[in-house]
Amino acid sequence: MALLTRGVARIITSGQVTKLLSTTSMKSLSCGRALSFNVSRMASSMRCTGRKAEVSPPSHRWFSTPAAESVRTASAIEKVRLDSDGVVEVEWSSGGVSSFPYVWLRDNCQCPDCHSAMTGFRRVMIKDIDPSIAPVTAEVVDGKSIQLEWPDGHRSEFDWQWLQDRSFTQEARDQRREAKRRKLQLWGSEQLEKLQPVEFDALMTDEMALYDFFNTIDTVGLALTRNVPCKVGQQQRLAERIAYLRPTHYGLHESSVYSKPNTSNLAFTGQRLHCHTDMPQYSSPAGILLLHCVQEAEEGGENELIDGYHAAYQLKEKDPEAFHALTTTPVSFAMHGKDYIRYDLEKTRPIISLNSEGEVVRICYANQLRSALMDVPVERVQPFYRAMRAWDDVLYHPDNCILTKLNAGEMVVFDNWRLVHGRRGFQGGRHVQTAYMDWDEVRSFLGVVRRERNLNN
Amino acid sequence: MALLTRGVARIITSGQVTKLLSTTSMKSLSCGRALSFNVSRMASSMRCTGRKAEVSPPSHRWFSTPAAESVRTASAIEKVRLDSDGVVEVEWSSGGVSSFPYVWLRDNCQCPDCHSAMTGFRRVMIKDIDPSIAPVTAEVVDGKSIQLEWPDGHRSEFDWQWLQDRSFTQEARDQRREAKRRKLQLWGSEQLEKLQPVEFDALMTDEMALYDFFNTIDTVGLALTRNVPCKVGQQQRLAERIAYLRPTHYGLHESSVYSKPNTSNLAFTGQRLHCHTDMPQYSSPAGILLLHCVQEAEEGGENELIDGYHAAYQLKEKDPEAFHALTTTPVSFAMHGKDYIRYDLEKTRPIISLNSEGEVVRICYANQLRSALMDVPVERVQPFYRAMRAWDDVLYHPDNCILTKLNAGEMVVFDNWRLVHGRRGFQGGRHVQTAYMDWDEVRSFLGVVRRERNLNN
Repeated sequence: MALLTRGVARIITSGQVTKLLSTTSMKSLSCGRALSFNVSRMASSMRCTGRKAEVSPPSHRWFSTPAAESVRTASAIEKVRLDSDGVVEVEWSSGGVSSFPYVWLRDNCQCPDCHSAMTGFRRVMIKDIDPSIAPVTAEVVDGKSIQLEWPDGHRSEFDWQWLQDRSFTQEARDQRREAKRRKLQLWGSEQLEKLQPVEFDALMTDEMALYDFFNTIDTVGLALTRNVPCKVGQQQRLAERIAYLRPTHYGLHESSVYSKPNTSNLAFTGQRLHCHTDMPQYSSPAGILLLHCVQEAEEGGENELIDGYHAAYQLKEKDPEAFHALTTTPVSFAMHGKDYIRYDLEKTRPIISLNSEGEVVRICYANQLRSALMDVPVERVQPFYRAMRAWDDVLYHPDNCILTKLNAGEMVVFDNWRLVHGRRGFQGGRHVQTAYMDWDEVRSFLGVVRRERNLNN
Repeated sequence: MALLTRGVARIITSGQVTKLLSTTSMKSLSCGRALSFNVSRMASSMRCTGRKAEVSPPSHRWFSTPAAESVRTASAIEKVRLDSDGVVEVEWSSGGVSSFPYVWLRDNCQCPDCHSAMTGFRRVMIKDIDPSIAPVTAEVVDGKSIQLEWPDGHRSEFDWQWLQDRSFTQEARDQRREAKRRKLQLWGSEQLEKLQPVEFDALMTDEMALYDFFNTIDTVGLALTRNVPCKVGQQQRLAERIAYLRPTHYGLHESSVYSKPNTSNLAFTGQRLHCHTDMPQYSSPAGILLLHCVQEAEEGGENELIDGYHAAYQLKEKDPEAFHALTTTPVSFAMHGKDYIRYDLEKTRPIISLNSEGEVVRICYANQLRSALMDVPVERVQPFYRAMRAWDDVLYHPDNCILTKLNAGEMVVFDNWRLVHGRRGFQGGRHVQTAYMDWDEVRSFLGVVRRERNLNN
């Protein structure tokens, strides 16, 4: 954003067309041929760029604000230069220079022969590009785009905004990463008061209500809806507003959780379920858990809900050694039995997963499914238990844990890669429907709505 | 296996019960109390171990061969010792010593109070274990198990085989990893002759045929079935023999691939599709791709199938720099459009993914979906293109690429994390059904069958 704002503020209208031939490229051309290229360039440029408006959708929203559009009337590019290091250097009218590699530009030619506007697919094949390719000419067109000519006569034109959105400078890359960073709101037990239920009917009829609901789950980790019909099938109705439920070994849709005889799962008893995340035995645990209370327990059955990211960062602060142990010790989670299908699942990973920037991205913790088998040297075992104990203490701290009992007709939907949840023991005919979705589909939906409605968040 | 075999060969029958009290633990006990524990130990041991046969299923098959069972008649444990370093040392009758941490043993007590035989779940909670816990006594029972007594009087008994299967020694851990390592068969174009189609009816009726089919896909990467009814829905029938199809933005079940007007996807034209893997725009790309030919093209439409693992290892050998670039350069794959749902998906990862041991575990490569946006310093761009060109050359080498045309009624099923596939351009009413499954469900099925039939592979 900062880059764009600054760019807008500093634009100087020049209207000038600057054309440069690199010394290197000149060597391979006769003057006559270079001239004949000039003659055909304008027509070719029109052909290659005729569909440009179509082929440059605002796919990276942080650079495609209405302000950017207005800049198209002014000059954005001051100069272009073919550098002997294999890059085209673009000097912006707003100041600064960006470099774009020759081969990258050829690969990403936006003309209809090289890029399918209809499908958004690249038509250029790797086998057809010489990694050492260099353009023979480069020029600025109306201060708004650069046009390159390749050794075989093919021409490519690139809009200044398209180029700036893909700048390789450290500053631009940092800004893009920052813009993509999840806007997380960490919380403790006080979050209970902020859990304002949304009417289920609104989710079923109003796309923006649906967007806000799942956007909240993305940032806060959970959201609540009420006046859900007290019968099975409601999670499927909700999921189908976006995509579909994720099938698991419990079945294709929801599964009913109440006391069953001879169950293979503690969840299907009235016993307390200690805090955990669901599906740690899968390679990719379900991203989102939907709990729909069809009938509340006569006594007990409250849910415990903890922001696992918040707890993890607290642990990191309080006890860095424990945090390190939980982010590096491989733990196997295993489950086998028979529900919708027979299953025999096992997956090994740390309890707290970090990305390459050290941010917490997933909690997988189900103490009851943790395998006795550990692939670590014996001396790492006791420190790991000490770390799990410290983690458990943070999770169950009263400041961290929401304790809430769902009423019949309420559904809580939460991030299963983030929230650690439990259930108090209960008496009576409690009936809760459980179902899953994945983040791919939900984030895809959020992206579609942002794109279609030109939202920034 | 080697550990077990050697263990079996060297067993010496002693029948002796060795009991040791660690000096540390002795200090906290009066002799009288120690004696009274002895009196109650046998009854308690019976209670705690009464369900042992139930609670120790052969979950790690490489140690549960018939040979292992016969050893239970002989002595397996020579001595047990409480070490001051927080571990129980077990001296095997076959030679060698294994150490098991105190807290790990307490956590994994197999008695019915601590471990649910019915569900396989752990009942011991982290909050209830002091990470510094130490047993007060340890003894060998009948040369077959060790029994520990904890400060609160709780007793735990551990079978020798259960312990050996979970040994923390480097040797045991290496052997377990080796046993779990995938048995891959890499191949080139010669594999075409080995593609013996299995009758579809056999897959629908014979569990071992189904097991062999998917086990082949796990090891070789692909398998072929014939005499599949020439109508939609056959992949779903096959998937439901195991679990279910994976829903994608193409829908809940199969999607039909033939030429369509105004498509958002090149696949739905008659054009050539260059070699790629499917779904690189997903966080977890579908693991298995099922292509069912309902109607073959009048002309063209052959499939190209390449073992991506084999190609990757060839590249590593021939051009380590290119291999390094493809395993470390983040590449974004993006796709948006509308099929079963509206979607806007993007995921960034290297083209070749390695595990922590440097083994190739996933190929994600769809040149047409590769985003122009790259988060790398500009100087890494040209070397990356050089690497992609080298990779492309390996993939398309005639020695690597199977070219085969599916006939109507044939279905090829392959590992989408491994095979790179393409399709030649075609004329006429070609109709191929495409569907997906995930490895979690397929490997779970293979595990279930192995467990139920006591198979080693």
